Amino acid sequence: MSIYPRPVEELIDCFARLPGIGRKGAARLVFHLLGRSDEDIRVFAETMIAAREQTVFCRDCQNLSELERCPLCENTGRDHTLLCVVAEPRDVAAIERCREYKGLYHVLHGVISPTRQKSPDDIRLKELLERVGGGGFAEVILATNPDTDGDTTALYIARMLRPFEVKVTRLAYGLPMGGHVEHADELTIMRALDGRREV
Amino acid sequence: MSIYPRPVEELIDCFARLPGIGRKGAARLVFHLLGRSDEDIRVFAETMIAAREQTVFCRDCQNLSELERCPLCENTGRDHTLLCVVAEPRDVAAIERCREYKGLYHVLHGVISPTRQKSPDDIRLKELLERVGGGGFAEVILATNPDTDGDTTALYIARMLRPFEVKVTRLAYGLPMGGHVEHADELTIMRALDGRREV
Repeated sequence: MSIYPRPVEELIDCFARLPGIGRKGAARLVFHLLGRSDEDIRVFAETMIAAREQTVFCRDCQNLSELERCPLCENTGRDHTLLCVVAEPRDVAAIERCREYKGLYHVLHGVISPTRQKSPDDIRLKELLERVGGGGFAEVILATNPDTDGDTTALYIARMLRPFEVKVTRLAYGLPMGGHVEHADELTIMRALDGRREV
Repeated sequence: MSIYPRPVEELIDCFARLPGIGRKGAARLVFHLLGRSDEDIRVFAETMIAAREQTVFCRDCQNLSELERCPLCENTGRDHTLLCVVAEPRDVAAIERCREYKGLYHVLHGVISPTRQKSPDDIRLKELLERVGGGGFAEVILATNPDTDGDTTALYIARMLRPFEVKVTRLAYGLPMGGHVEHADELTIMRALDGRREV
């Protein structure tokens, strides 16, 4: 016999399938939710459906968008000759938060990963190729994460874009601002040494 | 300008309002969800509505139930002279998991807490009074958490039940101080049941 009513168990299951949430954590979330108003719960459920139904992938940058073409791609105030390639929509958000970059984006929705069985066909590389092939870009900045899969993906894209007359760069990797050499891992220190600059 | 489409931002807000989930964590959950199938998302949303609409509070024990009277209260194989008073439905689940206790339950849905402005009227004490007043119980076991609010609530209930001919006991402090019934292991709960004392 299950301890909770069936619909409650099922909702716990739904939450427990989310990444980083165990069954006890899921139960805690569900009981918190059940302590809310009917209206609150209805809004949550409807928002979940809306987030899927009312968002598409921008036809240019592949980022999540309410419109066929997202506001970033539509913005004529941005530099349309600069293209920053990222793995996920949240990477766009992180870069936008620093208010430094004024070019466009391309969201891959994943990285090439032999260990997680993600091949180049599983991410939005075809769309990137078409876009860069269409011309108009002076520079493509590869902003995948500095880990094995991110490096593999960046290398793959750099090779893929070699036939085009476009500069391909990669984000600098080194010690994070405010970080300590003492606490940095070996790989970060190696990257920081490799990328050292004359002062 | 918000970085994500409005419905996605709204869904992140919904998740971020859950306890223990920050905005970054919420965004991670939402992007995971948006990577699932339409069907998966629809089921999650519908289950959320169902968990509210298809559950009531058992008319006797006040636990969440699909029926007017829950399976535990309906079960004639259990000891209907023993009543265990807990704060939350998840405490019932924790005690049931140790398969030691065969009596009934009463779920308060909270504890008396001056710091969190929870008065005796905010939890299901009236229902407990009516139930014990109705007779038939030989013993009431107070199984609130061994913390300030749990102790206050247990003491309040012990006093409230003094006019009745019923033995009132409290779980033994086999539970670590400051701990939660929900997270206790089966052995600790069994020790606490065995060592219960009259108050």
